Amino acid sequence: MLATPVGTYAALAALMAPYLKPGAILTDVGSVKGQVLKEVGPHVPPGVHFIPGHPVAGTEQSGPEAGFAELFDGRWCILTPPPGMDPAAIETLKLFWQRCGSDVEIMDAKHHDLVLAITSHVPHLIAYNIVGTAADMETVIQSEVIKFSASGFRDFTRIAASDPTMWRDIFLNNREAVLEMLGRFNEDLAALQRAVRWGDGDALFNLFTRTRAIRRSIIAAGQDTPAPNFGRSGTTPGRR
Amino acid sequence: MLATPVGTYAALAALMAPYLKPGAILTDVGSVKGQVLKEVGPHVPPGVHFIPGHPVAGTEQSGPEAGFAELFDGRWCILTPPPGMDPAAIETLKLFWQRCGSDVEIMDAKHHDLVLAITSHVPHLIAYNIVGTAADMETVIQSEVIKFSASGFRDFTRIAASDPTMWRDIFLNNREAVLEMLGRFNEDLAALQRAVRWGDGDALFNLFTRTRAIRRSIIAAGQDTPAPNFGRSGTTPGRR
Repeated sequence: MLATPVGTYAALAALMAPYLKPGAILTDVGSVKGQVLKEVGPHVPPGVHFIPGHPVAGTEQSGPEAGFAELFDGRWCILTPPPGMDPAAIETLKLFWQRCGSDVEIMDAKHHDLVLAITSHVPHLIAYNIVGTAADMETVIQSEVIKFSASGFRDFTRIAASDPTMWRDIFLNNREAVLEMLGRFNEDLAALQRAVRWGDGDALFNLFTRTRAIRRSIIAAGQDTPAPNFGRSGTTPGRR
Repeated sequence: MLATPVGTYAALAALMAPYLKPGAILTDVGSVKGQVLKEVGPHVPPGVHFIPGHPVAGTEQSGPEAGFAELFDGRWCILTPPPGMDPAAIETLKLFWQRCGSDVEIMDAKHHDLVLAITSHVPHLIAYNIVGTAADMETVIQSEVIKFSASGFRDFTRIAASDPTMWRDIFLNNREAVLEMLGRFNEDLAALQRAVRWGDGDALFNLFTRTRAIRRSIIAAGQDTPAPNFGRSGTTPGRR
């Protein structure tokens, strides 16, 4: 999962363009798809197939050393070919990702950015935010935050330890969808805050019950294990 | 970690009081300490030592079957004795928790509730909230949220799968501290939202860098492992 400052994709594409042979498939693995399509598209020479891609896999760590052989197993890779793309080129790229262990999904770039805003970008923003709020506490409380982090906070710090450069660029490149989803999140949080203030136990209980159904669906879809505190099987090689 | 509707502690204490022998130590394991002290305190017979306690350990699962022998190993148990408590009684309870594998910390009940609001209660409220926001999405997106949850959302659903009754009661019992911390979180999120809207990459980068220091401190304090996606060693017995 990568992203770059707005405008960098275009500059890179302009540099690469003269060396792309007709018939070549050009792809990427970034977390935001609309911006890369907009910037790179105009530079792609005739006969070259540009199909943006996004393997939805990874951990909070980055760089070559964070890789492991099973990284893509049972995870989804999303391809966002522009309208009119050669079906044979899509099929070839799809096969590439399937051979890496991924399942492949095709969708529109704009839709991808909206779905990822709610499943990935806003969750990361919120995790960064609460860890920042805690870091700003008075010193005595800050040391206690670390000590007693096992009560929930810990999981947020893991997410908030993701690469700062990559995440800055994701938010700069997917601004609209992030703001749209953040708006929904804020509305819902205001209602929840009001329920806490007025002691509306039923409203709290109803939400807390409803969210369990989503969790069960995620486990059923093979995207997490039911074992407490584990995102992957503890026996996966290379992940101890 | 347990909590009960406001008033239940008092009713329970009134029922128990006649059967408590002088010299007995009375304690609990709830997540909120101010309310239990306020409700139970007046019912405790003379000579009985009431010392509220909170083992900061557990997973998103609850009930006897969610227990395992190492649950308290290397985790903290917080005791919140009221002023003037017999030091020998505190020492006895401390020893009990140490023999269960816990480290023990003594603090004021009000301070406990503030620290836990930021390390546990607000993180849970936020996790419940974003999973609720996603659950309210249009059907097509909701199924995609499940499919592509490996990108960050998954970790929030794990937290948001915690027991609804217990968490309703935690928010009802720790209202003031939760609202105080939620206020800080909201202020910070508004600033972050503004940075996204105006493309202030430096503000984003600075926060995202600062949050890594907290993560490193938590790993150094032995409250999490540096292994990606793991809250505990994958080799802990009983946790597969």
